[in-house]
Amino acid sequence: MIETPYLLFLGDAPDGLAAKVAQGIKDWRPDNAVGQYRMEGCKADLRLPDMTLAEAKAAGAKTLVIGVANRGGVISPAWKKVLVTALEEGFDLASGLHNLLSDEPDLAAVAEATGRALHDVRVPEVKYPIANGVKRSGKRVLAVGTDCSVGKMYTGLAMDREMNARGLKSSFRATGQTGILITGNGVPLDAVVADFMAGAVEWLTPDNDEDHWDHIEGQGSLFHVSFSGVTMALIHGGQPDALILAHEPTREHMRGLPGYALPSLEALRDTALPLASVANPACQVVAVSVNTAAMSEDEATAYLAEIETRMGLPATDPFRYGAAKLVDALVALS
Amino acid sequence: MIETPYLLFLGDAPDGLAAKVAQGIKDWRPDNAVGQYRMEGCKADLRLPDMTLAEAKAAGAKTLVIGVANRGGVISPAWKKVLVTALEEGFDLASGLHNLLSDEPDLAAVAEATGRALHDVRVPEVKYPIANGVKRSGKRVLAVGTDCSVGKMYTGLAMDREMNARGLKSSFRATGQTGILITGNGVPLDAVVADFMAGAVEWLTPDNDEDHWDHIEGQGSLFHVSFSGVTMALIHGGQPDALILAHEPTREHMRGLPGYALPSLEALRDTALPLASVANPACQVVAVSVNTAAMSEDEATAYLAEIETRMGLPATDPFRYGAAKLVDALVALS
Repeated sequence: MIETPYLLFLGDAPDGLAAKVAQGIKDWRPDNAVGQYRMEGCKADLRLPDMTLAEAKAAGAKTLVIGVANRGGVISPAWKKVLVTALEEGFDLASGLHNLLSDEPDLAAVAEATGRALHDVRVPEVKYPIANGVKRSGKRVLAVGTDCSVGKMYTGLAMDREMNARGLKSSFRATGQTGILITGNGVPLDAVVADFMAGAVEWLTPDNDEDHWDHIEGQGSLFHVSFSGVTMALIHGGQPDALILAHEPTREHMRGLPGYALPSLEALRDTALPLASVANPACQVVAVSVNTAAMSEDEATAYLAEIETRMGLPATDPFRYGAAKLVDALVALS
Repeated sequence: MIETPYLLFLGDAPDGLAAKVAQGIKDWRPDNAVGQYRMEGCKADLRLPDMTLAEAKAAGAKTLVIGVANRGGVISPAWKKVLVTALEEGFDLASGLHNLLSDEPDLAAVAEATGRALHDVRVPEVKYPIANGVKRSGKRVLAVGTDCSVGKMYTGLAMDREMNARGLKSSFRATGQTGILITGNGVPLDAVVADFMAGAVEWLTPDNDEDHWDHIEGQGSLFHVSFSGVTMALIHGGQPDALILAHEPTREHMRGLPGYALPSLEALRDTALPLASVANPACQVVAVSVNTAAMSEDEATAYLAEIETRMGLPATDPFRYGAAKLVDALVALS
């Protein structure tokens, strides 16, 4: 659990894209973002107040989050002075970089001396149980994709936001680095040891009110041979009541796997639903979430209409058109 | 890679069952077992020569394998004197216990001082890659089960032995503790970090002669919610050419999961084959391996005949009747 709110560290980001994690936090949890810290030459700007460490402290910030990725995912020497000072001034640090904060001897020493926490969200902080498969109360929805990186996290965050706006009980359950930094907690599922994957998902989505929805962040794809085991653990550990099919229609092959074609939405439905039924016989496929970023307005509208007819399911792009249709489908299920 | 042959340490095993790992080594790799070391009160007996450390050394043994599990999986103080002496006399040590050899300060210190290796086969010794899905040469077969612990390892070892007896090119590829100790190498898949599971299986089953068969040790079950992710990684990382369906007909519910019924063999076939086809479109389900240990001879014969008719596949119990039928099915495929 990372203490909020955050000061977002953008460092010397060469462009806005490098500050993607910080942008995600600002977009999805604006209350968590009191300001941004930019070094000389920083080309990213979240349009948050620029703050010194002292100003952010006065504004209530508890954790300095490294919201920027530089080439190689390393902690640049140029950042070190800021990070060390932040620890000394009472901030915790949080990072999703491959280069762990806790592997830096100077940061580890100062954190130890000052009693501050270093959160490397790529590293599990919890000893997860082995899954027991016992049915839990409350409702859960999981987005499963035809491929990796087709908008599963975005879909979950958008449904959670829409439910909150409607006054419904809802939680986003992060299973990846960006999601964990956005919400302040979660399970870094791709770093969990095999035997405990499904148990980690059970742990993440415990018993809840019957009318509460967990939006479980999806990972990988059942059709992506590198990461399908992680997806499988989400389907069985999450025991979802509802599946959302996630798709990016212009992808030419599975991400990182030339020669592997994407499955059809029908194949995804027919593969994922029987597997989900093992853990939750009541599970249903309720909607399709399409990433239409590479399509014109006309193309997107026509494609979504075609999918609705073909699949007999509501279909939308939650980034372009909001998540109302998806949430309607969940509410219809409850 | 554990150096062979072994001296099998049975310690103070309270009964034969406690020496199951040693029994597996003796049954499947008799050439790896030069002798047994029994302490006072040991109730297990593999009918191997009882040897002192010096005798085993003279007979060529390279590694002392802890072939016994005691309650709690711990390294008993009573064993320590033998283990320390073994290191001093030039043996490596190997163990599949939860209590790691390398976590014992005295063993770690003596191993360091003597330059001997401590092999804890529950801990990956290799930094595995992320799976790339590239098609590999050679043939691979994987047993997939209706449940955990239905005889998948046994099936693979039996097919490997039968192929060797016929002079065919064949390797057993261990993915669990017992399998690794039996063969001296493998991947402890349930201890591998999620992102690298499928890559570890690719690493374990590399390019080979076109007429060579890898018998990949199965783990878990697609229908076992605690471990299905591990099975999924085997199916996609292993890119099997052939699947064997493994089943234990008298099991009342999924192992450790009361309330979860076992799937039918048809459901297993219809779930596993499409998933395997993602990584290897040529994959086929070729046979059924049934653990009939709890059935009389008449029951077993009748059940196997029924399965052959129902499934249209050869079916046998390789423990009871040998693996010839299974190997015939593989050979027919090559």
